[in-house]
Amino acid sequence: MKQLEERIRQEGLILSETVLKVDSFLNHQVDTQLALEIGQEFARLFSGKPVTKVLTVEASGIQFAMAAGIALGVPFVYAKKKKAVTLSEKVYSAPVHSFTRQETYQISISHKYLGPDDKVLIVDDFLATGAALVGLVQIVREAGAELVGVGSVIEKSFQEGRGLLEQMGVEVHSLARIAAMSPGVVRFVGETDAAAEQTKENL
Amino acid sequence: MKQLEERIRQEGLILSETVLKVDSFLNHQVDTQLALEIGQEFARLFSGKPVTKVLTVEASGIQFAMAAGIALGVPFVYAKKKKAVTLSEKVYSAPVHSFTRQETYQISISHKYLGPDDKVLIVDDFLATGAALVGLVQIVREAGAELVGVGSVIEKSFQEGRGLLEQMGVEVHSLARIAAMSPGVVRFVGETDAAAEQTKENL
Repeated sequence: MKQLEERIRQEGLILSETVLKVDSFLNHQVDTQLALEIGQEFARLFSGKPVTKVLTVEASGIQFAMAAGIALGVPFVYAKKKKAVTLSEKVYSAPVHSFTRQETYQISISHKYLGPDDKVLIVDDFLATGAALVGLVQIVREAGAELVGVGSVIEKSFQEGRGLLEQMGVEVHSLARIAAMSPGVVRFVGETDAAAEQTKENL
Repeated sequence: MKQLEERIRQEGLILSETVLKVDSFLNHQVDTQLALEIGQEFARLFSGKPVTKVLTVEASGIQFAMAAGIALGVPFVYAKKKKAVTLSEKVYSAPVHSFTRQETYQISISHKYLGPDDKVLIVDDFLATGAALVGLVQIVREAGAELVGVGSVIEKSFQEGRGLLEQMGVEVHSLARIAAMSPGVVRFVGETDAAAEQTKENL
């Protein structure tokens, strides 16, 4: 998605070879128009397959699940990271290890909102190690629902997430795929080093 | 908002005189069409006052901030509950006490995304004790931004939140105002006991 790649070039802050901040337009301050277009792009990429529900995990996946739900005309469900006091019924759950925070947490979804009749599109802001997305895939399978695929807004293609999901037989689409990055330079998949260098002055 | 009151009557689960679950359509599974209409209603209620930014707190405020941002054509910002590893710059922050969870946490917003030029509409899913919303108001004032008002989807009018915000001089609009509830019965503000009882069989 060209427009997204341009925004990453213009506004993304590369703090190290693995840490990219996009909190001016994607996951702290959110450009609502861009988010809507991201939802439409997910709907286009997975068109032809019926989807009954979009699934994500709180918090930064919510705006993109909402946008995809709007584009597809279906509800979305977000997995909770903490068991809520008011979430007393039975839940599907999976452990997720956060490499950024160096901690393992549980994600959970009520049995009421996912079942064998559902055809599920999973979306999230980032696909990197794949930890959260693998957890969501496990939950979809445990629920007996059909998994349509996984859509991520930004993929760090140099990390193992896509490979893990593909090994599980999951169709993956990412709207911006980063092959490599270093402070000041981001190279997208399919782009030459020279092209990445040329954009360096914009960063 | 009549449609919202009807959904609360049809699908809300009243677990006690203070705990209402609306996770089938508002804050676990989300009806995207209803969320969009909630955003339009916030835009209508605060129309006539320019808004440059919608503000909320993760996670369950995000879908309504997104919807209000779409209706108003502006970005939204969500306060984080934990300091992120990638959020290293200066932040505005406020302590919030959660009575549901019996814990106090910090909410924070980067200095980059809120400032004296902003005219801010704050939205959230619930207004009950007001703890999170008072924290957001404090942050808006600390940033020197103009506060347009606070919009909540559901207000528990029998709790102190609205009073606290009004004492701070804040304009408050809620789309459904619950005067009282008990298992099986919800009475909205302005409604007689008899009207609430009549709807009991739908619960």
